[in-house]
Amino acid sequence: MENIFTDAYFMKKALQEAEIAFEKGEIPVGAIVVVDNRVIARTHNLTELLNDVTAHAEMQAITSSANFLGGKYLKDCTLYVTLEPCQMCAGALYWSQITKIVFGARDEHRGFMKMGTQLHPKTIVVGGIMENEASELMKRFFAKKRK
Amino acid sequence: MENIFTDAYFMKKALQEAEIAFEKGEIPVGAIVVVDNRVIARTHNLTELLNDVTAHAEMQAITSSANFLGGKYLKDCTLYVTLEPCQMCAGALYWSQITKIVFGARDEHRGFMKMGTQLHPKTIVVGGIMENEASELMKRFFAKKRK
Repeated sequence: MENIFTDAYFMKKALQEAEIAFEKGEIPVGAIVVVDNRVIARTHNLTELLNDVTAHAEMQAITSSANFLGGKYLKDCTLYVTLEPCQMCAGALYWSQITKIVFGARDEHRGFMKMGTQLHPKTIVVGGIMENEASELMKRFFAKKRK
Repeated sequence: MENIFTDAYFMKKALQEAEIAFEKGEIPVGAIVVVDNRVIARTHNLTELLNDVTAHAEMQAITSSANFLGGKYLKDCTLYVTLEPCQMCAGALYWSQITKIVFGARDEHRGFMKMGTQLHPKTIVVGGIMENEASELMKRFFAKKRK
């Protein structure tokens, strides 16, 4: 039997979160955290609503998952996020020792890879999952803003 | 007349916050944010109590200051923090466009300078203010933990 729990399956859920951010006028980035094929956190960017530069989807996902797990290390967790994490979020993921990060679109300017932010040596990174959908949503957001 | 509002004057207040963290069994790092010689935020590391790797003193100071100011950019603000910020906190400070960062002790291993994290080009950084007091407190903490 085919495994339905692919990276694309979970990234679609992260994209749904990004759509919610879009509707709120937030830069549309969504994230979910998965343990054993179970979603334990769903978050989206809230920097405008909360007036807080630290309210990226990933930061909320880390805090929320740690709350759920009752411990601050995100072992056996996978973060799905629609956009490549920034320095801050990658730095937080470093501390969390998260097992795996799957992201959608690259952030060529402010992504952690360009910026050289270090992740925990145990963390696996996969990029480009549903990147077209994620970057399409970002383009649509900024085109709407310019109008 | 001599200006009493020196960097050491404010760093002493950040050190008081670090002492509070110490008493709670947290890695003793404290921070304050100052605008026009007025303290608008006082925070200390709470990663153990909150079970949250993102609960560094600086992250809370950024959120708290933005709440106080009613805007997410920390213009005309100075952060005083007893230890050199990590990647995550430097990444958050980058987004905040904070005017000035003053830190106490260097973090040779996980500090943002060693890690190469980028701050906002407008941000001024001063290090080494009351560094002996700050690193003494850290040493005392880890010596106590080892016992």
